[in-house]
Amino acid sequence: HKPLVMRTSASTVSIEKETPETERPPTFLRQDSENDAGDVRARFEKMIRDVQDSVCEAIEAVDKGSKFKEDVWSRPGGGGGISRVLQDGDVWEKAGVNVSVVYGVMPPEAYRAARAASGDQKPGPVPFFAAGISSVLHPKNPFAPTLHFNYRYFETDAPKDAPGAPRQWWFGGGTDFTPAYIFEDDVKHFHSIQKQTCDKFDSSFYPRFKKWCDDYFYIKHRGERRGLGGIFFDDLNDYDQEMLLSFATECANSVIPAYIPIIERRKDTPFNDEHKAWQQLRRGRYVEFNLVYDRGTTFGLKTGGRIESILVSLPLTARWEYDHKPEEGSEEWKLLDACMNPKEWI
Amino acid sequence: HKPLVMRTSASTVSIEKETPETERPPTFLRQDSENDAGDVRARFEKMIRDVQDSVCEAIEAVDKGSKFKEDVWSRPGGGGGISRVLQDGDVWEKAGVNVSVVYGVMPPEAYRAARAASGDQKPGPVPFFAAGISSVLHPKNPFAPTLHFNYRYFETDAPKDAPGAPRQWWFGGGTDFTPAYIFEDDVKHFHSIQKQTCDKFDSSFYPRFKKWCDDYFYIKHRGERRGLGGIFFDDLNDYDQEMLLSFATECANSVIPAYIPIIERRKDTPFNDEHKAWQQLRRGRYVEFNLVYDRGTTFGLKTGGRIESILVSLPLTARWEYDHKPEEGSEEWKLLDACMNPKEWI
Repeated sequence: HKPLVMRTSASTVSIEKETPETERPPTFLRQDSENDAGDVRARFEKMIRDVQDSVCEAIEAVDKGSKFKEDVWSRPGGGGGISRVLQDGDVWEKAGVNVSVVYGVMPPEAYRAARAASGDQKPGPVPFFAAGISSVLHPKNPFAPTLHFNYRYFETDAPKDAPGAPRQWWFGGGTDFTPAYIFEDDVKHFHSIQKQTCDKFDSSFYPRFKKWCDDYFYIKHRGERRGLGGIFFDDLNDYDQEMLLSFATECANSVIPAYIPIIERRKDTPFNDEHKAWQQLRRGRYVEFNLVYDRGTTFGLKTGGRIESILVSLPLTARWEYDHKPEEGSEEWKLLDACMNPKEWI
Repeated sequence: HKPLVMRTSASTVSIEKETPETERPPTFLRQDSENDAGDVRARFEKMIRDVQDSVCEAIEAVDKGSKFKEDVWSRPGGGGGISRVLQDGDVWEKAGVNVSVVYGVMPPEAYRAARAASGDQKPGPVPFFAAGISSVLHPKNPFAPTLHFNYRYFETDAPKDAPGAPRQWWFGGGTDFTPAYIFEDDVKHFHSIQKQTCDKFDSSFYPRFKKWCDDYFYIKHRGERRGLGGIFFDDLNDYDQEMLLSFATECANSVIPAYIPIIERRKDTPFNDEHKAWQQLRRGRYVEFNLVYDRGTTFGLKTGGRIESILVSLPLTARWEYDHKPEEGSEEWKLLDACMNPKEWI
């Protein structure tokens, strides 16, 4: 199966304006009877909301005294989200953990099954459902890595004018990390957890999704990845749906053991202005990737998603120096080399 | 006429890899006899190189003791450029002034005249020539505005398989400024100089190009312009070519009187951390505009232009705070309001 929502021309999909809510609703799902695949939708929503809670708790436990600020919103036609952001803590300069549920409509060109089923008739727009958790965590200490993870579930309804077209579903997501300096122990620990999680489901997953991650987070104009990878997958539906729901759940639940021990080790490492400036340059690369290439960001900006939730992925601060080249053999150079030539870490 | 090179799908135009040069050549133009419009090309190149010299001199005179670093490069098939960057001076944190000359080939779909002339035959690729000066100047003091200007000239050759197709030419460019705080005197001074320059040529130019500037530098996902405008025009060829060459020349020559007096007034204004943080947030918007919307930047990144020259437009440092909203009526709010609702300043 080919990717769907995200490769659709962004200008042809649009999302309703959100309205703020004062309380978290028990669910963002529409309470309609036609929602006969509600089981997976509801279980996925519960999973991402539980993960949001546990990741935020783990972060507050490390960044003692700092608290996430929460914004809840909904959309008139259904769906909504919860954004949680911790800014200018002792450990993290910016940590965003968002969940959202979207009901939208995509143009039929994006939807092969509908086209095939509709015969001579011109197919109409296809309603879709999407739910996901998305998080970026930028620490202050230059030796402590940035982490990103995102797990999402898509479904299309059968189009109204092609009732025979099958309902389709997909999973996507990944966890990747972006240090400014390489500590081999950290990188091995992070990738080992990804591999262990993958191996519980299919031995082909880790090598495939590790490479997919290296390919996806590529800043083409620099010839560099933004960081040291992890796992990434998209449009995954050629496995049992229950199996993939479990897989996405285990991936999301492995964020804390993969990341928090690294932060505990590095958050108080002494550093100097040069270390900080290098971290800030790498943050600049993060901004370049997210604004120029990241599908979720560029799609979100163009379809009218909630801007502050989308751009919470950007670091608090970033830096661009003209023609900066680290000295060959330096620690900065080693990081850059690993971003240009992805390695097998385990 | 419709825009040409820049609206061409970037993936179908590509530019040769540049090679560094140790000296500035007298010209980057190809020395071929078929260059029968060489007069305008040569005069435009001389103009932009003179402006590069005079702007860099003016900046060094204000930022005493700081010096531009120069990089010269060429391309095997002709063309090249000179990048000059002053970084971490006393007055400017980053000042880039670049000239470049490009020989490229665009797909025939982009070129209407060629299509029309070729009749039934499928037209071939169309060689083009482009030369321009591009500059972004980011001061340190939050009360001193960022300035951007860019003036460029395009020509197409007659395509080889459609020799009857006319040679086409266009001018484009503009000067716009981006303060973090409004000083009415500064804004009026800046816009008055733009208007005076425009009025020497055509009384319709200032109102038209002022609006074009407000429309162009629009950060759609924010509903904000990146700054307080100036003038912008593109694909201008429906006037006498000599007149437009003079116009572009006068515009480029008015950069110093439009900008330097403002910097002299503001460069030593005392400021606090809040002023600096607000400037940094506005720098973040500058990054968003340049990486997401600016045609020159996005086109350059995708066609293989010289990355460090293209991205010299990015500030040395920038900042993104979650859901930052200035207090209504504050100086920060006034700037934001003027970015959301462009005003007539003169």
